[in-house]
Amino acid sequence: MIIVLRPGAGRESADRILGLIEAKGLKPLHMPGSERVVLGALGDERVLGELQLEGDPDVESVKPILAPYKLVSREMHPHDSIVRIGNMAVGGSRLAIIAGPCAVETREQTFNTAASVKKAGALGLRAGAYKPRTSPYGFSGHGPAGLDILREVGDEVGLPIVTEVMDSADVDRVAASADALQVGARNMQNFTLLRAVGRAGKPVLLKRGMAAKIDDLLLAAEYLLDAGNDQVVLVERGIRTFETATRNTLDLNAVPYIKQKTHLPVVVDPSHGTGIRDLVIPMSLAAIACGADGLLIEVHENPPAAWSDGAQSLYPHQFEALMQTLGPVAAAVGRTLA
Amino acid sequence: MIIVLRPGAGRESADRILGLIEAKGLKPLHMPGSERVVLGALGDERVLGELQLEGDPDVESVKPILAPYKLVSREMHPHDSIVRIGNMAVGGSRLAIIAGPCAVETREQTFNTAASVKKAGALGLRAGAYKPRTSPYGFSGHGPAGLDILREVGDEVGLPIVTEVMDSADVDRVAASADALQVGARNMQNFTLLRAVGRAGKPVLLKRGMAAKIDDLLLAAEYLLDAGNDQVVLVERGIRTFETATRNTLDLNAVPYIKQKTHLPVVVDPSHGTGIRDLVIPMSLAAIACGADGLLIEVHENPPAAWSDGAQSLYPHQFEALMQTLGPVAAAVGRTLA
Amino acid sequence: MIIVLRPGAGRESADRILGLIEAKGLKPLHMPGSERVVLGALGDERVLGELQLEGDPDVESVKPILAPYKLVSREMHPHDSIVRIGNMAVGGSRLAIIAGPCAVETREQTFNTAASVKKAGALGLRAGAYKPRTSPYGFSGHGPAGLDILREVGDEVGLPIVTEVMDSADVDRVAASADALQVGARNMQNFTLLRAVGRAGKPVLLKRGMAAKIDDLLLAAEYLLDAGNDQVVLVERGIRTFETATRNTLDLNAVPYIKQKTHLPVVVDPSHGTGIRDLVIPMSLAAIACGADGLLIEVHENPPAAWSDGAQSLYPHQFEALMQTLGPVAAAVGRTLA
Amino acid sequence: MIIVLRPGAGRESADRILGLIEAKGLKPLHMPGSERVVLGALGDERVLGELQLEGDPDVESVKPILAPYKLVSREMHPHDSIVRIGNMAVGGSRLAIIAGPCAVETREQTFNTAASVKKAGALGLRAGAYKPRTSPYGFSGHGPAGLDILREVGDEVGLPIVTEVMDSADVDRVAASADALQVGARNMQNFTLLRAVGRAGKPVLLKRGMAAKIDDLLLAAEYLLDAGNDQVVLVERGIRTFETATRNTLDLNAVPYIKQKTHLPVVVDPSHGTGIRDLVIPMSLAAIACGADGLLIEVHENPPAAWSDGAQSLYPHQFEALMQTLGPVAAAVGRTLA
Repeated sequence: MIIVLRPGAGRESADRILGLIEAKGLKPLHMPGSERVVLGALGDERVLGELQLEGDPDVESVKPILAPYKLVSREMHPHDSIVRIGNMAVGGSRLAIIAGPCAVETREQTFNTAASVKKAGALGLRAGAYKPRTSPYGFSGHGPAGLDILREVGDEVGLPIVTEVMDSADVDRVAASADALQVGARNMQNFTLLRAVGRAGKPVLLKRGMAAKIDDLLLAAEYLLDAGNDQVVLVERGIRTFETATRNTLDLNAVPYIKQKTHLPVVVDPSHGTGIRDLVIPMSLAAIACGADGLLIEVHENPPAAWSDGAQSLYPHQFEALMQTLGPVAAAVGRTLA
Repeated sequence: MIIVLRPGAGRESADRILGLIEAKGLKPLHMPGSERVVLGALGDERVLGELQLEGDPDVESVKPILAPYKLVSREMHPHDSIVRIGNMAVGGSRLAIIAGPCAVETREQTFNTAASVKKAGALGLRAGAYKPRTSPYGFSGHGPAGLDILREVGDEVGLPIVTEVMDSADVDRVAASADALQVGARNMQNFTLLRAVGRAGKPVLLKRGMAAKIDDLLLAAEYLLDAGNDQVVLVERGIRTFETATRNTLDLNAVPYIKQKTHLPVVVDPSHGTGIRDLVIPMSLAAIACGADGLLIEVHENPPAAWSDGAQSLYPHQFEALMQTLGPVAAAVGRTLA
Repeated sequence: MIIVLRPGAGRESADRILGLIEAKGLKPLHMPGSERVVLGALGDERVLGELQLEGDPDVESVKPILAPYKLVSREMHPHDSIVRIGNMAVGGSRLAIIAGPCAVETREQTFNTAASVKKAGALGLRAGAYKPRTSPYGFSGHGPAGLDILREVGDEVGLPIVTEVMDSADVDRVAASADALQVGARNMQNFTLLRAVGRAGKPVLLKRGMAAKIDDLLLAAEYLLDAGNDQVVLVERGIRTFETATRNTLDLNAVPYIKQKTHLPVVVDPSHGTGIRDLVIPMSLAAIACGADGLLIEVHENPPAAWSDGAQSLYPHQFEALMQTLGPVAAAVGRTLA
Repeated sequence: MIIVLRPGAGRESADRILGLIEAKGLKPLHMPGSERVVLGALGDERVLGELQLEGDPDVESVKPILAPYKLVSREMHPHDSIVRIGNMAVGGSRLAIIAGPCAVETREQTFNTAASVKKAGALGLRAGAYKPRTSPYGFSGHGPAGLDILREVGDEVGLPIVTEVMDSADVDRVAASADALQVGARNMQNFTLLRAVGRAGKPVLLKRGMAAKIDDLLLAAEYLLDAGNDQVVLVERGIRTFETATRNTLDLNAVPYIKQKTHLPVVVDPSHGTGIRDLVIPMSLAAIACGADGLLIEVHENPPAAWSDGAQSLYPHQFEALMQTLGPVAAAVGRTLA
């Protein structure tokens, strides 16, 4: 950590702050320059975080040297982690394609969609029983009854199931049904939920928040690992920017960047990342081309009749077409679909 | 609701969609133009929300006519609402100045800070017992023990207390101690929490999320009102933008805009909105000048020693100076401090 | 165009505004609803733009039906345009890979880099003689002397050259040397420059501004076509968002979206779009996978010695490796490199 | 400047880079830590800018210690600068209120509006003869004929005039008519224009770009001072964010922040900063409350008939009302209107 003192801060200020650094068991450095005095503090970043020097009136700025996360860091764990969700592995050479409807609406709709994505080559089934909705008047899911349908359908078609949990009180119930728990974008910094999910003993798909920097996402994952769960898949699903032509701005830069920084696998959700059905196929190809370990895609047996997210849901024949096109792109970057 | 059909969509497409509109009990309109066919659907916006026409392959775009919220709308309730938190009224001519430390650290620190802000003229006390922290290694609050300290200090100095609740499972416990519940920016779209807080029977301070449009904030408030709680104060605390000179970008435009759209009171948090101690006083004055009903300000008896948010916490003498300067600004816009 | 009147606006308001619409030769529509009166105006969007109804005190909002651009629109011109820059075609099945140093530093550096990218398979050479620099103290290019070097090197290695023009007064000089004129992100809305470049009779690469919505980019291109130049290539080069891990956020959603809306070709600049050398290769692959017609890539014979943009410049051997990997990805989406 | 080496970079890497630092005449520092080697380079920031260490493969990150600007810095020039535009001083205790129509439409419209703002207490007149327009089909101003009208009207009503210049080729013509030159948001990084305006010998109003960080704005101002012109007024006019309720997000945080960093005066444009007439008055009050040295406000004799920006233009009686309300707010923060 580098500490820049304000212009005019004298030797006593420097000595006082060097003393605070030393008192924490960190190594202090003193670098007087012509226009600013710069101090250094070297040591464990978790201890460094306790130095609240930003609030010191003699301090102009504080610049960290090390990343604020540790357990998720590739420096700690150089090899790629592979996360197992049922019989699907996320992070190896085979791509983890997870598809399904936005929400469990009826048993029939869930089954029909699941059967079609399974047939097209999906390895996992996604659908929501608990749905976060911006408006209180939207369909917010069937809850436990939805979980039951989803579990049955998953077993019937032979796909592991991924579904969202929105509240710490529901974690046990959702974990009892699902093969993996999803933490949604709006809950990425619901830290109580993160701790509960971290203790649940199930793999987790952690979605990036709409205003989350990549570092924030990695720190949210650090909560899960710190709670004892290292079966974590990160999900890029678009961030909120000034662009309104698309629902979100899919930040594919994040894919290779995250893979440099962490050993955890990354999948991309082009459905929320674009909000527009016709963009889902090209952005799926792009996601795999830049190194994503899989995709999370909304498919509905009949999108115009979907209770939510119809505009971004693929028709089953489109998902099939995507899988066809995806094969050669995957091969071009050394990955496989099957 | 206005529905624009894609170029090439013919009479049958229009008729089919007009049929869907009519089937929901809404009034359909047909407006054929030279380059696009435009349809209209008039009626209750809650029913309109069920028309998922965005997903229809013949639809180019859907444009709402009415705001998506209802109970919070000034159209429904033209007069300003006044929210009572203990003996403090938020929304009347007297400004609701709520101040205190970021977190309850010790009984002494809480008491000293509370006593100083009370003496300077604050009407409410804020401090966190449950603290959302980006990193799992940060101080996350004393929990129930912190609530007890805060309650005692509030009673001792004679100020109502406002404190954050982060999880639906903690709502009853926090509601038992606090005079008002705060929902933080990171939980603004934690809908399970919103429903639980909505049922708790205590006034709520709802903070705007870092990526929340004003409409999203109003819909989050709609959750509270829909759950039966109309004692809601909205809090502008800055949004996340590309600007990194300040911690957040305080969106004061939101203050007069929100007051046009809703009857609920609005207070401003310039501490999180700037992240820089020296900007808190000028931005407090600006907030009141543009119509805020109050302020939520971090003050610490000794900011460089604060366990969190020291860089944005005022010294007690600065808070006192703020209250002095605030008086004439308040008077200039027809408000009072006492 | 749909015009929503404010609550309370009565029949006279509607009639007055319908009169304004009719007076412009547009077709007026009257759609009274229960909570709002909605009016319509149908006709040429260029005339609609003259209706300044947003400023009317009886108007709540105005919603356009048609896109604000016309000449660039795919509706006007359904087939893909192909732009010819020297012997390179941009927009056909062969990808337009344009590479070279950020700036012309010396004849030797320009030649060495140009020779290496030519050998690796680039079809165009890029380098700046006029450099926009955030600070007045940065290297701002050699100007005309740089153009001369670039022209000579382009001829020597046999690549058409693309270079930036920053001011209307320099357009003739740059057009005399270059095969294509580049308008940089910071000048995307320098409308005097756009008109001058539009009249210059040379193909144009128009870069998206850092805060430009896709519609703004298309309207900037409309300036060029309106001035008589339809040889326009659009460049996605990243937008400015809250994410600071990368220099910009490369918005690849824009690629398929733009190709839906316009007939003009689109190339991607992953160098500025990421700002990080190690991300350039994966993002180049992603760009081609989602449909880009080419790439604009910074390569330097010795990046650590570059006078500008060294951190995002590829080494020649990296560019060669990119071209190797790109082949199969291109083939997977029906494109070729040669 | 602090240079963090990548993990694994050894003593030779450090020595090589320390050699580069020394070769530039800067003072090198070596700070080996347990997880990273950190280097320092101390000296003139203009020389530091030439060290392109970001591109070095052994370098993980580079962190500046000093601000990248110098002439505009308050450290160089501790006292507030006062800029004189005709008989108006910007930056002293008297607020510089500059008002007028978006564009010179007709002589009569310009005169009527100018007379009304003069009567209400404005000290300067603003209006555009050259208008940047997002669409090529919008009204782009009368050019030289507009300048003549504006000059005559300014003389007739007795107000100095401020008007935009969009191209370096027009600088002399605009400077011959206007009392101050305005550089618009879209041209803030048109560096050729900045250099030309810097040499023109007239005061400048420099508007912040829609995607410009405050540091970018200060560096754009540095261009003007570096070209010999220190009569520069900075204008906060809103930035582009995800919020669409308002045209831009007025970043009032920037006002006190800029005043800390620079000696140049700052005025606020709440018309573009909000885009909504009803927000202009409250945001004007807020701007003054947080320390702005003046306002730049669009007023039109009849906003619904304005050829541009009618939705954000005040009626003359509203401007008069603003001036009435502004007096006490100004007084509360130690400023005056007259």
